[in-house]
Amino acid sequence: MRNFKVTLQYEGTRYQGWQKQESTDNTIQGKLEMLLTKMAGVKVEVQGSGRTDAGVHAMGQVANFHMETEKSPEEIMEYMNFYLPEDIAVISAEEVDCRFHSRLNAKGKTYRYRVLNTAVPHIFERRYVHVVEQKLDVEAMKRAAAYLEGTHDFKAFTSNKRSKKSTVRTIDQVKIERVSSGLFLNEDNRDEIRFTFSGNGFLYHMVRIMTGTLLEVGLHKRKPEEIPMILSSQSRECAGELVPAKGLTLMEVRYS
Amino acid sequence: MRNFKVTLQYEGTRYQGWQKQESTDNTIQGKLEMLLTKMAGVKVEVQGSGRTDAGVHAMGQVANFHMETEKSPEEIMEYMNFYLPEDIAVISAEEVDCRFHSRLNAKGKTYRYRVLNTAVPHIFERRYVHVVEQKLDVEAMKRAAAYLEGTHDFKAFTSNKRSKKSTVRTIDQVKIERVSSGLFLNEDNRDEIRFTFSGNGFLYHMVRIMTGTLLEVGLHKRKPEEIPMILSSQSRECAGELVPAKGLTLMEVRYS
Repeated sequence: MRNFKVTLQYEGTRYQGWQKQESTDNTIQGKLEMLLTKMAGVKVEVQGSGRTDAGVHAMGQVANFHMETEKSPEEIMEYMNFYLPEDIAVISAEEVDCRFHSRLNAKGKTYRYRVLNTAVPHIFERRYVHVVEQKLDVEAMKRAAAYLEGTHDFKAFTSNKRSKKSTVRTIDQVKIERVSSGLFLNEDNRDEIRFTFSGNGFLYHMVRIMTGTLLEVGLHKRKPEEIPMILSSQSRECAGELVPAKGLTLMEVRYS
Repeated sequence: MRNFKVTLQYEGTRYQGWQKQESTDNTIQGKLEMLLTKMAGVKVEVQGSGRTDAGVHAMGQVANFHMETEKSPEEIMEYMNFYLPEDIAVISAEEVDCRFHSRLNAKGKTYRYRVLNTAVPHIFERRYVHVVEQKLDVEAMKRAAAYLEGTHDFKAFTSNKRSKKSTVRTIDQVKIERVSSGLFLNEDNRDEIRFTFSGNGFLYHMVRIMTGTLLEVGLHKRKPEEIPMILSSQSRECAGELVPAKGLTLMEVRYS
């Protein structure tokens, strides 16, 4: 059996997230398996680097699947892009060692959360950004974010209460930038705030809860210095709100 | 009667263009007039700076309307944004002199046409860009574009054959840039080509036919030096193809 690794983009808006479900065929994994199973004539299972929740987007999700085929990776990519809906695309494909596993071999991931910091409605990016109308203090958010970097128990920053697995993760960097959303012709208008999180892995809802907590710092509802206490509390109630899925994009999955 | 000037953004995808029509209420002007007429309790007419065709977007369309109201421009903007669909927005509103007319007083306009120059599908910008997979020669397109700048009879670059009005227009600048589409995390990947046209006015389909002609130069199907001959031919058949509406955005309307 050959093993293929694909890099995927999708707009999460219309889907019930990555993971296939009994109750719906409206998931990214479900769509991919249906397509590849049809192509191969036998059941094909697709392994993703991780689940993305309903409404979350991906610019660089990675998946792999084992398949008997005469086709080249380029032909598989072409086939998939021909049949996939317009909001899912394969942007690269390669044949990999049969032992490669997109989740188990992942060394790191990068997520981006986009906040439009303006009271003016933004038509063109509306599906990909979360709007915060009040002025945000970026410097305070940067100070708070620095406390999240490093290896910590992120139990306070996940919605998953039942899991007995480790909630320790390492965040290499939290980058916060004020950039132009392109809302106006004059691109000097820096009305978008981008939160880019790179780490070895992220818990369920972790990026969205970290962003929600940082936004509360940016609105001066919390102090940057509260972050270490939230981490050590290990209590979801101490962290900030879960921000909407639509602002979140899985940017990249890294392998060694 | 007070006179209000508004700057509008819209995603043209779902609409039959700017201009209201008897046969459909699915136009931008139609939506705005319906809303303002409801607000005012009497028929309100909305004047746009010009029509945009079905599928064309706007980041800075300008319109004005006369209305009796106690409301401030800010309150009118807020009211409109509350009731407008999510793909139309008012981004600024002001009260202007009663003689102001958004079309008759317009001194210049800027349109942008976006081409994604890659064979890799692009999910996130798919509604706003035209895809050209083959490599484009930007330098050749720039040389061709220079011939379009200045005051010319653009009869060869319009689909409107019947009009007896002047087809002479002045183009101040045609700017062609290779920029990053943001398709990948690495933004050094400059896979988008932006054509930005500024001028005193544009004929029906003119920007899309100019872009189509420039793309043929970029694909080496034509030489840059053919442009003066196309202009002097005054014949639509000599110019290039009409490119799709979805790549086009009205960026700005200028007044003195």
